[in-house]
Amino acid sequence: MAVHPATDTIASIATAPGVAGIGIIRISGSESLSLLKTCFVPRVPRDQFVSHKLYYGTIVNQQGQALDEALAVYMQAPHTYTREDVVELHCHGSYVVLQSVLQTLLVQGCRPAEPGEFTKRAFLAGRIDLTRAEAVIDLLQAQTEGAARLAVNQLQGQLYTRLEHIRQQLIGFLALLEVAIDFPDDDVEIFDSTEVSFQLREQVISSLEELLAWSEQGKVVREGIKVVLAGLPNAGKSSLLNALLQEERALVAPVPGTTRDTIEERIVVRGIPIHLVDTAGIRKYEDPIEALGVERARQKLEVADLVLFVVDGSAGMTQRDRDLYQSVCHKSHLVVINKSDLMTTRQLEDLFSSFPEALCIPISAKHGHGIDRLLEALFQTIVGGRGPRADQMTCAPNTRHRAVLLHTLEACQRFEQALIAGAPVDLVAVEIQSALDCLGDIIGLTTPDEVLDTVFSRFCIGK
Amino acid sequence: MAVHPATDTIASIATAPGVAGIGIIRISGSESLSLLKTCFVPRVPRDQFVSHKLYYGTIVNQQGQALDEALAVYMQAPHTYTREDVVELHCHGSYVVLQSVLQTLLVQGCRPAEPGEFTKRAFLAGRIDLTRAEAVIDLLQAQTEGAARLAVNQLQGQLYTRLEHIRQQLIGFLALLEVAIDFPDDDVEIFDSTEVSFQLREQVISSLEELLAWSEQGKVVREGIKVVLAGLPNAGKSSLLNALLQEERALVAPVPGTTRDTIEERIVVRGIPIHLVDTAGIRKYEDPIEALGVERARQKLEVADLVLFVVDGSAGMTQRDRDLYQSVCHKSHLVVINKSDLMTTRQLEDLFSSFPEALCIPISAKHGHGIDRLLEALFQTIVGGRGPRADQMTCAPNTRHRAVLLHTLEACQRFEQALIAGAPVDLVAVEIQSALDCLGDIIGLTTPDEVLDTVFSRFCIGK
Repeated sequence: MAVHPATDTIASIATAPGVAGIGIIRISGSESLSLLKTCFVPRVPRDQFVSHKLYYGTIVNQQGQALDEALAVYMQAPHTYTREDVVELHCHGSYVVLQSVLQTLLVQGCRPAEPGEFTKRAFLAGRIDLTRAEAVIDLLQAQTEGAARLAVNQLQGQLYTRLEHIRQQLIGFLALLEVAIDFPDDDVEIFDSTEVSFQLREQVISSLEELLAWSEQGKVVREGIKVVLAGLPNAGKSSLLNALLQEERALVAPVPGTTRDTIEERIVVRGIPIHLVDTAGIRKYEDPIEALGVERARQKLEVADLVLFVVDGSAGMTQRDRDLYQSVCHKSHLVVINKSDLMTTRQLEDLFSSFPEALCIPISAKHGHGIDRLLEALFQTIVGGRGPRADQMTCAPNTRHRAVLLHTLEACQRFEQALIAGAPVDLVAVEIQSALDCLGDIIGLTTPDEVLDTVFSRFCIGK
Repeated sequence: MAVHPATDTIASIATAPGVAGIGIIRISGSESLSLLKTCFVPRVPRDQFVSHKLYYGTIVNQQGQALDEALAVYMQAPHTYTREDVVELHCHGSYVVLQSVLQTLLVQGCRPAEPGEFTKRAFLAGRIDLTRAEAVIDLLQAQTEGAARLAVNQLQGQLYTRLEHIRQQLIGFLALLEVAIDFPDDDVEIFDSTEVSFQLREQVISSLEELLAWSEQGKVVREGIKVVLAGLPNAGKSSLLNALLQEERALVAPVPGTTRDTIEERIVVRGIPIHLVDTAGIRKYEDPIEALGVERARQKLEVADLVLFVVDGSAGMTQRDRDLYQSVCHKSHLVVINKSDLMTTRQLEDLFSSFPEALCIPISAKHGHGIDRLLEALFQTIVGGRGPRADQMTCAPNTRHRAVLLHTLEACQRFEQALIAGAPVDLVAVEIQSALDCLGDIIGLTTPDEVLDTVFSRFCIGK
């Protein structure tokens, strides 16, 4: 990746469209201050603008016509978002006003910013590494507080610091190896394979493994998990779905969504978005009994992170329940015994014994009994079964990071095996360099341009 | 209206919702600074915040957990929007982040701001008069640059200054009168009726009349005008509507809208929003020929500010055209001769002579000929026939102002008549006081609380 010096001045509306109290236009580049002086008339006339100070005045167009009363701030490089000179105009939050002001700026020589261009400039100027740039878009798009927290941590450099620590370790190993290559006769004294191998495992490999585990959990926090409700018709899947939604509505407003052939709803349980899929939707198009055997229902089950297997407890366990359970039990699942209010304790115990390997939760979807217990079990199964607790993670590598971290780990494992096998030092060095290259890709030191383009294309305009 | 001292501290999100680069939370009130110190950790530790200076740092919740990296600014009273201490937190434009930060503030002792509460505080503190407060909401809701310009002018006090000038004149007259009342024997010398009458007409009444004319024109700029397309079926009303929309699309993107029983579209011609109503929509529900006679079509015509009467020129003028024209010609209208490409010059001249009183525009809706000339005529008819040109108006009283201005004018006219009739000075004084009370209502000196509530209820939250 070549570092392009960004010479032109860019501007864009930096706040969301809509009627609001405040709307901001952000300008970055060498012409920012002169644009400010051209288009902004401070209430109290002044020759210069003190950096980072807000001034009250009027924004005017080329004809000197007032476009808005606004606050303006000049932020002098390098203590700015982009490390370039930055100007912000805090206008009234009117689309017409913001467009007029932006047009006036564009006519006077700056150009519209591309999506993510301010953050890209911050990255190219070296103010933030690529993981922090990616944290910005993750933060803007966060759907839950948990996802926002992970993004803020990453923005504050928690992922970068860990990666940089690993990188420095590897650079240290490489430095030792290079001395050993330059002075082959002394290699035993300089490069102690046992010691390096120990440090590699303790400082590098274990850290990479932890990051990969956090990555998996981070995906759950950011994107949530897919829970499929399975069970015979009339087991009460739709009632359960409604009961879950109702329970959850008391806590957080859900974002409902309906797909063409399944009913899908989103709830948030302790900060984890859960996408509930009711295969009942399939019944509209197909015979319900046959439907359970067909490819489509199977596909739904296969993509599920967790299956809620619903049984009508009042009807007892039937052969059809057992057949269906056979097609489900290889997945992570909970058994939900519905209509348990119509059962005796003895009947309940009998039913429990039909699922010796599974966690069974008796509920009454109709009366809302046991739903809180089910949500608790759901949360424990999702989080408890998936390594670190979300609130203990300090960062969570994303899918791009994860792929490169796996390559880093593989290179480090080859490095370790080479050490154990007593391979020649120059061959060992190749593996260390390979791992270093991977880490450089993640933090943006050596990231190919096309990857950068993909990263920044996810941004909105104005950031 | 009692001036309520606002003692509690309020906070709200001040930018529009949506994923964006920046989102702002605004706080106003005596606790603003202490809230800032509690929830914001500047990157470089400091004991105090310089007023109006942006600081970079981290927003934290009560547990010290980082919610966002942000810029924060403390603005010390009285040089602020509300004249109270104000703090702004410039966060990332994420709904989840902004909600988290707002929640943290609310927990720590401020309350959510009501719609318009920041501006209401600015008004109650005497920083702006009521016309300037109203200009804020007009600006936020402006649909065109012309409407935004009028709002900015009003925000800058152009209406207030004029009203205040009138008010000072009347106060001067009242002072003279009061001297005359106190020293009745000297009244002739002190209070020269002829001179006062002259000044009243030159300085007050003519100014009020101009404001009323501007108010009418301002309504056109802000709300636009309603143009109804009338004509026999097959005259080409729908084609004309499409041609107008197409012509206009090249200039400004239209905001389409469809009402239940008419087709209504919006175009903007030189800054004036024009709502085009095609009565063709009625045809879907009723026999087209009968429809022209029925009540609904008549209602459409009656609410029109301007009628475009469309004739199929190639078919010539028929009796049915003449009958229909009779029901239209009492309204402000233009005659549009469609399909003129199929006519000879002679035929065109004949048709012109059928409308000796009207402006006739030959067009071809199908080929787009003459549409620009029609738009020009439309604009001239709207603006030319309605007093001052929009771009020469420095302000435009709104509907509320207009109603009160009419009362002011009436009081002044009674004042003038009393002068001419040589009425007793104390009776004359009553009329002046009546006019002064009206002006006080407009600028907010004596506005009843319920009117204030109505004014501020139009605002969005965060302003």
